[in-house]
Amino acid sequence: MKINGVSYRTIWTEGDLPEAVYTFDQRLLPFELKKAVLRTSEDAALAIEQMLVRGAPLIGATAAFGFYLAAREAPEGEAGWVYLQERAARLRQTRPTAVDLFHAIDLSVRATAPARAKADRIRLALQAALDFANASAEQCRQIGLHGLELIRAIAEKKPGQPVQILTHCNAGWLACIDFGTATAPIYAAHDLGIPVHVWVDETRPRNQGSKITAFELGQHGVPHTVIPDNAGGHLMQHGMVDLVLVGTDRTTRLGDVANKIGTYLKALAANDNGVPFYVGLPSSSLDFSLRDGLKEIPIEERSDAEVKYFWGMEDGQIRQVLTMPEESAAANYGFDVTPARLVTGLITERGICPASEEGILSLFPERGE
Amino acid sequence: MKINGVSYRTIWTEGDLPEAVYTFDQRLLPFELKKAVLRTSEDAALAIEQMLVRGAPLIGATAAFGFYLAAREAPEGEAGWVYLQERAARLRQTRPTAVDLFHAIDLSVRATAPARAKADRIRLALQAALDFANASAEQCRQIGLHGLELIRAIAEKKPGQPVQILTHCNAGWLACIDFGTATAPIYAAHDLGIPVHVWVDETRPRNQGSKITAFELGQHGVPHTVIPDNAGGHLMQHGMVDLVLVGTDRTTRLGDVANKIGTYLKALAANDNGVPFYVGLPSSSLDFSLRDGLKEIPIEERSDAEVKYFWGMEDGQIRQVLTMPEESAAANYGFDVTPARLVTGLITERGICPASEEGILSLFPERGE
Repeated sequence: MKINGVSYRTIWTEGDLPEAVYTFDQRLLPFELKKAVLRTSEDAALAIEQMLVRGAPLIGATAAFGFYLAAREAPEGEAGWVYLQERAARLRQTRPTAVDLFHAIDLSVRATAPARAKADRIRLALQAALDFANASAEQCRQIGLHGLELIRAIAEKKPGQPVQILTHCNAGWLACIDFGTATAPIYAAHDLGIPVHVWVDETRPRNQGSKITAFELGQHGVPHTVIPDNAGGHLMQHGMVDLVLVGTDRTTRLGDVANKIGTYLKALAANDNGVPFYVGLPSSSLDFSLRDGLKEIPIEERSDAEVKYFWGMEDGQIRQVLTMPEESAAANYGFDVTPARLVTGLITERGICPASEEGILSLFPERGE
Repeated sequence: MKINGVSYRTIWTEGDLPEAVYTFDQRLLPFELKKAVLRTSEDAALAIEQMLVRGAPLIGATAAFGFYLAAREAPEGEAGWVYLQERAARLRQTRPTAVDLFHAIDLSVRATAPARAKADRIRLALQAALDFANASAEQCRQIGLHGLELIRAIAEKKPGQPVQILTHCNAGWLACIDFGTATAPIYAAHDLGIPVHVWVDETRPRNQGSKITAFELGQHGVPHTVIPDNAGGHLMQHGMVDLVLVGTDRTTRLGDVANKIGTYLKALAANDNGVPFYVGLPSSSLDFSLRDGLKEIPIEERSDAEVKYFWGMEDGQIRQVLTMPEESAAANYGFDVTPARLVTGLITERGICPASEEGILSLFPERGE
């Protein structure tokens, strides 16, 4: 996707067997997006740990490229393999709950295992990292192409008017390698000249909507408006939303969708007003081991400081301001679960299906054990 | 209600025919609540205009006390009456949409009209202001007593455990003369020793929940927890809310409830999870001229700066920080309408009734023309 008119992925290399990997430091978004250079496997580990990079696919890719940098650092022979195992363990410990992270490292370790010479390990580790990133970007591109058809169908019914899409949190390309999940159909439509306008939920308490989604859409030139999380119901009551598109952290085999806190409230409003509510997800977010999302998905409680303080910019300086009585308690639940009955459909890399076990297995029959 | 252990109303005088009226400067809440002295009718007008005071009942009372101060300033005889008319016009212009403001000034003008001597005008204007304030406080107290029975009934079903109440925005005593509307039942229960705990929606974009409601509850000693507006649905899904209690700016004769943006989303979640959803309101908020709230109640659009910037405290200084790309658009709808079908009941000063024309007219039969 584009930043300031130039196309980028969120992680990339230049040339053959490059000495460094490039990504962005996302910590000061939307005020600053700095190019970051990773020269060592420890640079990659710190980039994940210190949250320069975020979003499951990008974290996974950063780990895979970190493993490639480790292969460059490693000595020849058996000692090199021991070193690689150590670095893989280090990378695994950076963000202990990210499934994509473990998955990416496993792929890299497996791809590199057959090699005996250092040069082969380097070559195979680089290929594994590129494969992981390419596969992830391709999945998002496919989600975009499938979701595009939903947007196109709405656009055909209201010629000359923009398709109004509401999104929550950030399921965009900065969390992925390219395109994003929930945002992929939006970019696909926009790039084809279908007029779209996005209502961006600010997504308290961390404001990933107003900070990251708004930045992404703005850089790529997609018309958008940031709204408080409270506003979506009113917009839907007044016919100002044609489609809700969100991402997911985890979706059960029955189609219950865990996503950023507040998603459920938007699903209720969509349902009450006949607005289609779709979830964009790579199949890696489908957890076939779970059924009832409300009962089985544990909801992370995060620091109350995210609620008590707002983080922003004044006079060119980042500041953190207190906005409530210091002595009052605050609670910060990270996610909620939207029951499948409120989800119109799931947009996966293989196509769109109903949010039900039957629907999901129709696209992923190999998981129907 | 109490501040730092001392009982206060939000506006008061001391002694007979006092030279000044006392209120609070609420602009720096929750960080500072300063006593403010109004010595002239212009002081009162500025207090309303510059939002030292807020909330329809308190604005009305401030105007009535401002009219009393004008009566003290006025010359004897016919010239005095002309002066009073001028000051009434000035007070009317301070906040052009507040119905209580006009109502309070009308009452004061009417009460003072029969008097010819300045001394009589002063006495009657003071009595009119005290009557307005007392009537408003008494209405809130009655709402509290009726709503108390709902809380008591829940408490009896879960002995030893606090009744969990969720509220949105601020319908508390700082907006009224005393007790508040939605908060009155909470204070009544707490003061009787019934254990309650309040989930306080922060209420973006102006954060009246985290700034004012949390301050009020904390000062009065009521246990409470501030949550992002996104959290209420999750809490209700998990049985962590027994009752939703909100206020209203305007309720139609069919029971449609206009209140702070986001109220509708909480009503949907309450409905989806079988949580009772009640609205506390003085009958002055009932607009018998309106039927369909969604079609007939205009929704104010406010400045986008309230969405783009967060206001808070850092290192003892009030700051306003930007939290999104400066060039992105933002929208700020002030209110939404919760359809009567989602409202379990209305708590008025005359009792509790269903949110329907029949229910409302059963309590207010004189409006059934």
